[in-house]
Amino acid sequence: MKTTHAKNLVAAALAAALAFTANIAQAQDPLPSWNDGAAKQAIVDFVRATTETAGAKFVPPEERIATFDQDGTLWVSHPMYSQVTYCLERVPALAEKKPELKKVEPFKTVLSGNREAIAKLPMKDLEKILVATLTGMSTDEFQAEVKQWLAEAKDPRWKKPYTELTYQPMQEVLKYLRANGFKTYIVTGGGQDFVRVYAEQTYGIPPEQVVGTMGGTKYGYGKDGKPFLTKEPKLLLNDNNAGKPEGIHLMIGRRPYAAFGNSPGDQQMLEYTKAGDGARLCMLVLHDDAKREYAYGPAQGLPDTKVGTFPQALYDNAKKNGWTVISMKDDWKRIFSFEK
Amino acid sequence: MKTTHAKNLVAAALAAALAFTANIAQAQDPLPSWNDGAAKQAIVDFVRATTETAGAKFVPPEERIATFDQDGTLWVSHPMYSQVTYCLERVPALAEKKPELKKVEPFKTVLSGNREAIAKLPMKDLEKILVATLTGMSTDEFQAEVKQWLAEAKDPRWKKPYTELTYQPMQEVLKYLRANGFKTYIVTGGGQDFVRVYAEQTYGIPPEQVVGTMGGTKYGYGKDGKPFLTKEPKLLLNDNNAGKPEGIHLMIGRRPYAAFGNSPGDQQMLEYTKAGDGARLCMLVLHDDAKREYAYGPAQGLPDTKVGTFPQALYDNAKKNGWTVISMKDDWKRIFSFEK
Repeated sequence: MKTTHAKNLVAAALAAALAFTANIAQAQDPLPSWNDGAAKQAIVDFVRATTETAGAKFVPPEERIATFDQDGTLWVSHPMYSQVTYCLERVPALAEKKPELKKVEPFKTVLSGNREAIAKLPMKDLEKILVATLTGMSTDEFQAEVKQWLAEAKDPRWKKPYTELTYQPMQEVLKYLRANGFKTYIVTGGGQDFVRVYAEQTYGIPPEQVVGTMGGTKYGYGKDGKPFLTKEPKLLLNDNNAGKPEGIHLMIGRRPYAAFGNSPGDQQMLEYTKAGDGARLCMLVLHDDAKREYAYGPAQGLPDTKVGTFPQALYDNAKKNGWTVISMKDDWKRIFSFEK
Repeated sequence: MKTTHAKNLVAAALAAALAFTANIAQAQDPLPSWNDGAAKQAIVDFVRATTETAGAKFVPPEERIATFDQDGTLWVSHPMYSQVTYCLERVPALAEKKPELKKVEPFKTVLSGNREAIAKLPMKDLEKILVATLTGMSTDEFQAEVKQWLAEAKDPRWKKPYTELTYQPMQEVLKYLRANGFKTYIVTGGGQDFVRVYAEQTYGIPPEQVVGTMGGTKYGYGKDGKPFLTKEPKLLLNDNNAGKPEGIHLMIGRRPYAAFGNSPGDQQMLEYTKAGDGARLCMLVLHDDAKREYAYGPAQGLPDTKVGTFPQALYDNAKKNGWTVISMKDDWKRIFSFEK
């Protein structure tokens, strides 16, 4: 009798302990906005493999590097990249400072507000607008201009600041990786100085961990004798395609263990990541959720697009190379933090 | 009586506690290789001012950036920069791979071993040697070549590997700043990829915190289809003089709070650092100790030099701007860790 009673007590205690542990595990799901499935599992498996001290694929903390494309991977990039919107919306203020631009193309067209005409501007004209709005000022002035724009500008569909249109599931991946000793980097085709203005507040990624398209600066002195840096129209590195692994080498000097992207500009970064030894995680976000965000490919029969395209060849490449394609529709329980 | 006894006990306990605390404080001197004086005090005062939570000059941990020149600031750079020695000593191996170089200048002179003739090579020829030994190979091959050289090469005066010729007082500053939440960076005129090979092991500074003279790389695929990066003879940034603040902006994106150098190539980095608000620490190492290391200026009547010069104008600039000059002779109790 006594022994049975003791056994029952032990069993009850064990059950309670197990339930308690299960509750903790549930409460501690690091990826609550992800549906159970291959994508979520790939992330959890990767973190376990690289952090288990006794494991064959253990990675020392100092080597834990994870790189994330931004546009279309961490936040919305449709119907237009936010930085391009910024450049277009800066033109009126620029024309106030330099009235001679009001009569010159492509600035005249931008100032006209004719959306159709603006959408048709050729790349050469767009470049003129980028150069005029992203260079020629001090780094401090540029930072202040971008900060002010971000505080005021709103995405036309959600009527929210652009910095609120980040993907909650990816924010969870960033935090989950950092909690496991990974240094998280943005590796973007966007302007390095542009993204740095908000990356720390928006993603918890400090300026020194933002790798982007890089322009030169020029050191000089103001009238007060104080030194400052001027943003020059000199391209140092176009951080797209082959430029992504080149930029990673330049800025980080180590091969990433995990890389996330969503379009062909990210392909070389994923190849370079996967070419390393041990456990490597490569993921691509497929925008297949027109209802909650957007749907574009043209992979898998999705509509074609000019912004952040995901061609079938990239999809096939992913399958062939063991990269995981994330379906926004199927893999993400919720997309934005403001969803209920 | 009882009260007196209790008071005595308390007093004894207090005295013991104080003695204990004093012992700890002494044991914990973070800069034991520094003599007491203005230089050591400037470092301690700076750390206190920037880390005291309630203080007016408190700096949030994420903004605590400290930058260090390498050659002549963290390690010996006389009679020649170690990287130049590396390049010259790589020539024989290079000529084995490319025998056509054996008959071509300046490689012929280097292979002759005629030290006088080598020392007289003009800058144009030296550049040819740098390009031939620092570019054209994959980043992995380069890393392996430098690693092997560092394991074998020895400084002719101390008969020790170059990586043991770091200044112990500066190693203590690096650790002291890191213990107080600072991110420590090397900002060197030397090759970024070269210094990255040993910076982590030698200084505890990871590759992503090495800012140096930067060359481009080119992404491509090997015969096995694996991607790799080739070091290109394309200069992205000469990380000297104005290039130092430009490189800091490119790689870090924040203004340092502390900067350490030893020659005119560091001047703009110190100016840029000092131009920020709040407490800023700018220091220059003066090599005035011929006995324990080297003595060169020509500031303060020290002998002139071509490698790592410290002109009187820089010295005067330091005094004018509130930068602290570190006298190796007077401020450093010991210079190398291998000294007794």
